Amino acid sequence: MSMELPERSRKSPTTSGDGGVSRGPGLLPEFDLIEKLRALEGGDPGVALGIGDDAAVLQPAPGCRLASCIDTLVVGVHFPPATEPADLAYKALAVNLSDLAAMGAKPRWALLSLSLNQPDRGWIERFIAGWRELAAASGLALVGGDTTATPGPVTISVQLIGELPPDQALTRGGAKAGDMIAVTGSLGGAALALTQLKAGQAPEPALLRRLNRPSPRVAAGRALLALATACIDVSDGFAADLNHLLTASGVGARVAVTDLPLHSSLTSLDRQRQLDLALGGGDDYELCFCFPSAARESVERRLAEVETPFRVVGEVTAENGVEWIGLDGRSVPTGYAHF
Amino acid sequence: MSMELPERSRKSPTTSGDGGVSRGPGLLPEFDLIEKLRALEGGDPGVALGIGDDAAVLQPAPGCRLASCIDTLVVGVHFPPATEPADLAYKALAVNLSDLAAMGAKPRWALLSLSLNQPDRGWIERFIAGWRELAAASGLALVGGDTTATPGPVTISVQLIGELPPDQALTRGGAKAGDMIAVTGSLGGAALALTQLKAGQAPEPALLRRLNRPSPRVAAGRALLALATACIDVSDGFAADLNHLLTASGVGARVAVTDLPLHSSLTSLDRQRQLDLALGGGDDYELCFCFPSAARESVERRLAEVETPFRVVGEVTAENGVEWIGLDGRSVPTGYAHF
Repeated sequence: MSMELPERSRKSPTTSGDGGVSRGPGLLPEFDLIEKLRALEGGDPGVALGIGDDAAVLQPAPGCRLASCIDTLVVGVHFPPATEPADLAYKALAVNLSDLAAMGAKPRWALLSLSLNQPDRGWIERFIAGWRELAAASGLALVGGDTTATPGPVTISVQLIGELPPDQALTRGGAKAGDMIAVTGSLGGAALALTQLKAGQAPEPALLRRLNRPSPRVAAGRALLALATACIDVSDGFAADLNHLLTASGVGARVAVTDLPLHSSLTSLDRQRQLDLALGGGDDYELCFCFPSAARESVERRLAEVETPFRVVGEVTAENGVEWIGLDGRSVPTGYAHF
Repeated sequence: MSMELPERSRKSPTTSGDGGVSRGPGLLPEFDLIEKLRALEGGDPGVALGIGDDAAVLQPAPGCRLASCIDTLVVGVHFPPATEPADLAYKALAVNLSDLAAMGAKPRWALLSLSLNQPDRGWIERFIAGWRELAAASGLALVGGDTTATPGPVTISVQLIGELPPDQALTRGGAKAGDMIAVTGSLGGAALALTQLKAGQAPEPALLRRLNRPSPRVAAGRALLALATACIDVSDGFAADLNHLLTASGVGARVAVTDLPLHSSLTSLDRQRQLDLALGGGDDYELCFCFPSAARESVERRLAEVETPFRVVGEVTAENGVEWIGLDGRSVPTGYAHF
């Protein structure tokens, strides 16, 4: 009995006899799962052929360009082991949508690859429910994927295709000396929630949501398409991601740490702890972006239209490196190394 | 130190302190790896923005449709644990190219997601070499991806985007009663090689290549675009994959097992073993396709032009199910269950 999304190569596991892989009685009738997943296509007229063949067939809008990204998340690495399946799905999708948001792209189509050790119907149903919630809100159609048995932890790969106008995209590389530097939303909340979980505490629901259900800034990214000179999403931590943007643009920055939009839950912490979380915690999925000061009113108006708060935190300089103002001798976290 | 393909969300591992994930001294300077991977883009003019931003920006050919697929392979599940990194890369790419081949699509762009436990420079370099070999031959540009630390086995997700003409695609669903059923190349070789490996024997190099370096039938798929009524790639085993095609088309088949193109290495085996390997072994990455008998000369001419051998093995019938002729009471394997 095969438990799989049908759009995939039906590569045969080659070490079934000795690989230590669970292949006991299948717990999920194949076509039951397929029907559940087909429902996630959402009737997108651009999907000429969705789940159920060797590949999906997609019709992009005339003249558009595509934005394409992939991200893999591993339970026990990117998620605490006890994370709810619905939250796994939601966040795996959110971090990819955040990449499209950082390009200013309109989400269109998703492929999902799930590697599971002990699949069971309840797990899959909760996973699908979490996926559906964010996908529906994002106008994203699931057009294919695969499931794979693994002896390792649950591993989720999500690939997205978005659309861009013929001649516009937000990149990391266009910031100019004199541009303003801004960030949407708030920083540090997800990292604080994780800290509390690790300490055995239960974060407040709103704070936990910052960790498990980040809100990718898709509407803000699209609103900034013609206004921002550079953009990146904040996932490794603001300090590290700002640095990626500045390096790609060949510029530096002056940032006032007192202007950083700290998550409200950070206010009771000491100053160094605040900075650690807001600058180095990561998992914020906000947008860090630059724009010419002349565009400030337009940025304010467009982001207000999409109900996205933002704060100017500094300016781009011609000299490489970041001058952090207001640190008072405190250290700046540099973000995560992935190995 | 970060070892990663730069086009990815920089999601922070959230359980670094207690997840058991190796994050010792990074073994690969980030920009060294980036430069290696950038070279795999291959100067594709359709790549407006490749590796190094939050997402790739791609320019499809005017009017075309896209074929998109994803497949994940796990070492120890889909590969024997001792498989060379170059072979891992080659095969992970090949099984995805085989999916595009089955749609008749022209390969354009790839995203690669690597989950590694103990990354080291030598491993990555051999992996990249295997990838480059097949990608270059396929006209495929690597435009992004990510790397992730995992405590589990090496896990490779490949996502491909191919192009299709505005109004053509090979699907599983178009076979009609009376159509001929054919298969490219030969069947059973990869499965025999795997059997020998499991028994501690060393397969002949050409036979081992069938397992480790399958040749996706991309040119054949494109040649069949206007000729075949249905197509699927043979990955789970001919019997299972034919059944997928017939089910999607709502038809049945009559197949002469004596006409199956057995891999030459199977000739010395007993008949039931031959059938087990050719019908149920999988990993062949050949195309099984159907076409009206009136198109036979065109199929022969077009497949000869792309130097792809094929054999007619049966015909489509109106009644559901497959009548296997020449079995003489032997059983037909039904293909792999993935769990």
